[in-house]
Amino acid sequence: MDFSDYLQSKHSHIESKLNELVPERFEAPYNQLFQAARYALMGGGKRLRPLLAITTAEAFGKNCEAALSAACALEMIHTYSLIHDDLPCMDDDDFRRGKPSLHKAFTEGHAVLTGDYLLTYAFEVIAKDPQLLPEQKVALIDLLAKNSGGEGMIAGQVMDIEAEGRLIEIDQLRHIHKHKTGAMITASVACGGIVANASPGQMKILCEFGDDIGLAFQIIDDVIDVTASFQKHGKTVSSDSINNKSTYVTLLGLEPARQAANELLKEAHLKLDLLQIECRFLRELSTRLVQREI
Amino acid sequence: MDFSDYLQSKHSHIESKLNELVPERFEAPYNQLFQAARYALMGGGKRLRPLLAITTAEAFGKNCEAALSAACALEMIHTYSLIHDDLPCMDDDDFRRGKPSLHKAFTEGHAVLTGDYLLTYAFEVIAKDPQLLPEQKVALIDLLAKNSGGEGMIAGQVMDIEAEGRLIEIDQLRHIHKHKTGAMITASVACGGIVANASPGQMKILCEFGDDIGLAFQIIDDVIDVTASFQKHGKTVSSDSINNKSTYVTLLGLEPARQAANELLKEAHLKLDLLQIECRFLRELSTRLVQREI
Repeated sequence: MDFSDYLQSKHSHIESKLNELVPERFEAPYNQLFQAARYALMGGGKRLRPLLAITTAEAFGKNCEAALSAACALEMIHTYSLIHDDLPCMDDDDFRRGKPSLHKAFTEGHAVLTGDYLLTYAFEVIAKDPQLLPEQKVALIDLLAKNSGGEGMIAGQVMDIEAEGRLIEIDQLRHIHKHKTGAMITASVACGGIVANASPGQMKILCEFGDDIGLAFQIIDDVIDVTASFQKHGKTVSSDSINNKSTYVTLLGLEPARQAANELLKEAHLKLDLLQIECRFLRELSTRLVQREI
Repeated sequence: MDFSDYLQSKHSHIESKLNELVPERFEAPYNQLFQAARYALMGGGKRLRPLLAITTAEAFGKNCEAALSAACALEMIHTYSLIHDDLPCMDDDDFRRGKPSLHKAFTEGHAVLTGDYLLTYAFEVIAKDPQLLPEQKVALIDLLAKNSGGEGMIAGQVMDIEAEGRLIEIDQLRHIHKHKTGAMITASVACGGIVANASPGQMKILCEFGDDIGLAFQIIDDVIDVTASFQKHGKTVSSDSINNKSTYVTLLGLEPARQAANELLKEAHLKLDLLQIECRFLRELSTRLVQREI
């Protein structure tokens, strides 16, 4: 199968599972909450984290279905983080993927609660999956909570709001990126490993691979923030510079930033070789994460 | 053992476990997040939900230790809900337990993130507990996510912000209360049952008992909102009337509201009789929840 066909097929599995997990509901009071959740969740995300989880699980010979609830939980956690991040008291972004942010389309109160809902529901989705063993569910929940929590993504967001308006150094920026974005990219790959019962040695390699592509991904995000236009990127251009944020581009320059991302990708691919499994699609997917333009 | 001694002993177990789970940390960037979390979590709560979980587990002959991580998870979820509820875009409460609310003591951004952290961490705490079986962890996480989520507590909060400023009827108010407060009181009792491996029949009775005392508890909260002084209650008096909210007291009157709560308590105690276990302390604790003045 061609990689683009593969991607498209997995993408449509993810869309239909998300659609099933957060259905349209028309009875009060669920209509507003579920409408808001669907507005954010079904708003055309690239589904990178779910794709990473599924592609990893499939590289170990597991089928897509087995990874699907973990994949959707990853997307829910990612979406909640965007909703809260866009709030006026955080990044204050009025647009997301070319549409008004959730707190603009609904209210700030709805945005707080919808984020809370998606985060909470992510854990419920895993707990309820009839295909996973209790031990796998516990491992997935532990991993997701740890990597999205106070020593992972949320730590990164705290660092991020505290660094705003201050000039920071490259090591500090790398530290922020590793937590804010990297931890959930690593978790995505690791979820695939858990679902496929990867060995502890394989899990270690998967996490290192995830760390590399997670950082590369965020560096490219910084690059895109200055190069993309509003139409392509779907949000106010260079919100980072408007918010006076240090980025890989402001600290290193555009080309060296791109180069750093490509170096990380190369290292990540060397780690995949150590797994000694057929992981062509995982290799292609990680390449695409880094060599993208939007 | 005397009930007051029992309560005090359990209370100190809960305090020391929470203190251990969210320790003081002095290294950046964790200091601000953990400080904020401790400010909210160690701020002198009554620990009703943890006490309910522990007292229920002990009524089934299980020891306190076995219920302690579920108990702390309940308190973390409760605390996160208060932090987010106090935000300007929600209830806009500047005080909580006689101290500035978290978004006043820190920033609004910190308040959003600290709430997110406590919610996320609640699930991690259960996933990591070495004393529980995987099946118990999954059941606890499923229960907590469901009852605190989009069909439980968060649904109640959505109904609550959407009802603000509108006159609602008693059935609708009961519906809000059942979701916003009741679901987590029921979950507290049910957590105790899961930890103690209660049978499905016993779980059903526990949930019905929890539903009754949960609603009674919230009715009394409405009563206290109009009767308590700032010193006793620790927050701006009658924030409900300032926010133009319908309550049991505005809809039924003070005495009929008290009476409704006492009726529910009586029904709850009849349900406990069906369990045919020694549950003197659970009876006394539920009485105290309803016949309290603060």
